[in-house]
Amino acid sequence: MNIRFYNGLVCAMLDKTEIIEGQEVWIQDNKISYIGHYNPSEFTFDREIDLKGNLIMPGFKNAHAHSGMTFLRSYADDLPLIDWLNHKVFPIEAKLKEEHVYYFNLLGILEYLTSGITSVMDMYFFQDEMVQASLDVGFRSVLVSGINGDNLDSVKKMEENYLRFNGSHDLISALMGFHAEYTSSKELIKEISKTAARYKASVYTHNSESKREVGECIERTGMTPTQYLNSLGIFDNGGGCFHCVHLSQEDFEIFKQKKIAVVTCPASNCKLSSGIAQVEKMVNFGIRVALGTDGHASNNALDMFREMYLTTALQKVITDNASAMDPIKVLEMITKVGANIMGLTDCDSLAPGKLADLIVIDLHQPNMQPLNDILKNLVYSGSKQNIKLTMINGKILYEDGKFNIGIDPEEIYKEVNKIKLYLVSNL
Amino acid sequence: MNIRFYNGLVCAMLDKTEIIEGQEVWIQDNKISYIGHYNPSEFTFDREIDLKGNLIMPGFKNAHAHSGMTFLRSYADDLPLIDWLNHKVFPIEAKLKEEHVYYFNLLGILEYLTSGITSVMDMYFFQDEMVQASLDVGFRSVLVSGINGDNLDSVKKMEENYLRFNGSHDLISALMGFHAEYTSSKELIKEISKTAARYKASVYTHNSESKREVGECIERTGMTPTQYLNSLGIFDNGGGCFHCVHLSQEDFEIFKQKKIAVVTCPASNCKLSSGIAQVEKMVNFGIRVALGTDGHASNNALDMFREMYLTTALQKVITDNASAMDPIKVLEMITKVGANIMGLTDCDSLAPGKLADLIVIDLHQPNMQPLNDILKNLVYSGSKQNIKLTMINGKILYEDGKFNIGIDPEEIYKEVNKIKLYLVSNL
Repeated sequence: MNIRFYNGLVCAMLDKTEIIEGQEVWIQDNKISYIGHYNPSEFTFDREIDLKGNLIMPGFKNAHAHSGMTFLRSYADDLPLIDWLNHKVFPIEAKLKEEHVYYFNLLGILEYLTSGITSVMDMYFFQDEMVQASLDVGFRSVLVSGINGDNLDSVKKMEENYLRFNGSHDLISALMGFHAEYTSSKELIKEISKTAARYKASVYTHNSESKREVGECIERTGMTPTQYLNSLGIFDNGGGCFHCVHLSQEDFEIFKQKKIAVVTCPASNCKLSSGIAQVEKMVNFGIRVALGTDGHASNNALDMFREMYLTTALQKVITDNASAMDPIKVLEMITKVGANIMGLTDCDSLAPGKLADLIVIDLHQPNMQPLNDILKNLVYSGSKQNIKLTMINGKILYEDGKFNIGIDPEEIYKEVNKIKLYLVSNL
Repeated sequence: MNIRFYNGLVCAMLDKTEIIEGQEVWIQDNKISYIGHYNPSEFTFDREIDLKGNLIMPGFKNAHAHSGMTFLRSYADDLPLIDWLNHKVFPIEAKLKEEHVYYFNLLGILEYLTSGITSVMDMYFFQDEMVQASLDVGFRSVLVSGINGDNLDSVKKMEENYLRFNGSHDLISALMGFHAEYTSSKELIKEISKTAARYKASVYTHNSESKREVGECIERTGMTPTQYLNSLGIFDNGGGCFHCVHLSQEDFEIFKQKKIAVVTCPASNCKLSSGIAQVEKMVNFGIRVALGTDGHASNNALDMFREMYLTTALQKVITDNASAMDPIKVLEMITKVGANIMGLTDCDSLAPGKLADLIVIDLHQPNMQPLNDILKNLVYSGSKQNIKLTMINGKILYEDGKFNIGIDPEEIYKEVNKIKLYLVSNL
């Protein structure tokens, strides 16, 4: 489809994060073909969309989630991280079958679309089911391996999926990774490092999410999780860590030196009482930071507006400095910085030749008025209600509250509720 | 209008906070006339609404706001409380005229409706303008005086408005109050206490919002703000305090003994880096707590879903206890507890004879699925997107994203933007 967006504001997220008036955005198939003033041409459009003064910008990047966990929303609340994993999450997850996870992923993707999220770095079981759900809907997913335990064969599986998924489809890519230091044997981690080295591949993992995790690692290895992982070569080709709530100054140095990115998940970290990451300090220290929703069991929503607000508001309160964590930087984290960390530089901004992953923000809502500072409004008062349109790879998948994904959302809700009941009754 | 809601779930918020299946809610004029199973009767309805399984519940109560501050949204961000007030808020507020505040209030009310907020305890200049805006739209407002300074005549004005507003209209009531200890002379506060005593009227004020405010009060008076206000008789007839971020153990005792309520405003307190109130401790100590959005300049949204999530998530993280701040209690805070604190016991729950202030929550949205625990979903994953309908005093004012208030929202946006530009250009 060739689509013309006109009569709106454009925030392209290029070098400067600013709003430009009077420009149009043209889409040809799955890419942006033109951005600029109206330019009479022989180009014909299948659809011309009057933005009516609304804002068009790159889609939000969710740099850490477990999309298949939808079924656990409000199932296992009000427990600390380790108890929550061992007593609620792991037992029910042990019963999961591939076809279950397919539907859970579909539900997660629906929720992403309502929140302006156009791509996710997803870590969960049965990666083929996330690939299938993404392709069936038209969603962009970066699959990151979440292997753990001590079976070295799983590293071969990680490598196989890495090779199989990358290049398989426009919408799909893969990164190497594993669940966490505290769920993986030393041998497994070393084997992952060796494999990553062969491909010069960056590696992604959970790291320093809770105090207990850090304490236990120090007790076991004499090192913080960051130091321990670094000692095993995990960071030798770059990569990123999810959460990073409890980092030492030495950890900060390792992140900077090895150019390791942080994916902060403030809602999840609060809800599990894990703590508040020092995001302001990270950014000032030169560490790249992206935002993630984490999974439903710990958040319990996939709402990038919630994460944006928390990212700035929590930094202000923990640093005792109301000017901490510039909201404009937060917007960059969920667009171009997130895209960079996820390996999605083809859709990090709006420019000719870039993949057409974009959203339209409804400014004709009371929470966006008056238009004192639209970009600050997005971070400080925006909500999912402002997502008027979500386009991925040139296709409009969500518009004015309706999904255009070829599957009836009610069918997805029905299946997810049915499977969830089945799983609980078989515990 | 006589309206029948059927085929939905009911959370009446009576003694138990629970969801009942198979009941209907009938509205006659401005009151609830019946709740129960379908009951063939000769009663005729003007409209019958199929809830399609969605949830009907009491509207949210916003127990602290300055609705007229809409014009300051994203105007004065990233500054600490006292600087923010003195250098940004107070100078522009000094230019305000009555007709400006009327439009700013209308914008605030629009935003309340989108968030399921059916009443507000509002403290701002030109109270008649909030009364007029509320009556023009059909919104329910509790006006609380925000006088300050040292002019004792203003106390007479407070008394006059208290008498004039109470009983003037179904939708309007008034409470006594003043801005804060740090903006009011001792004589003024004593005069307010005397006036309140004459009417046995409860008094409401800002209290212990920032560390600096508490420190300066101790320096000036030798007492915390709570002790100081108590010593001047402010709490002798009950009342409530907004924020209460920095309370001492002795303050806690005063709140309990004098049955003073707290209105916590977590989003505002984070954004201004004021701190995080000890809400879990307050509730366990037997202090009644309601939620408030505060004004746009410090929040910057009027979004009760944001406040709910923050209220529980922040308590979990500051107490290092993931089970802290039961989400069900948070739901009670924004319905029946808030109503009680605001003097709105006529619309605190859904029951025959109660005023028809209610909302319909859209459960057919991905963020509410699966239906593991609908009430927890509301707090942990709900968003403004789930507000399908907002009814106040028996009138549907907002439904499926459209306002039904007799005024075009675009006209309100235009006026607010115009006035805002005028004010800034005259600074």
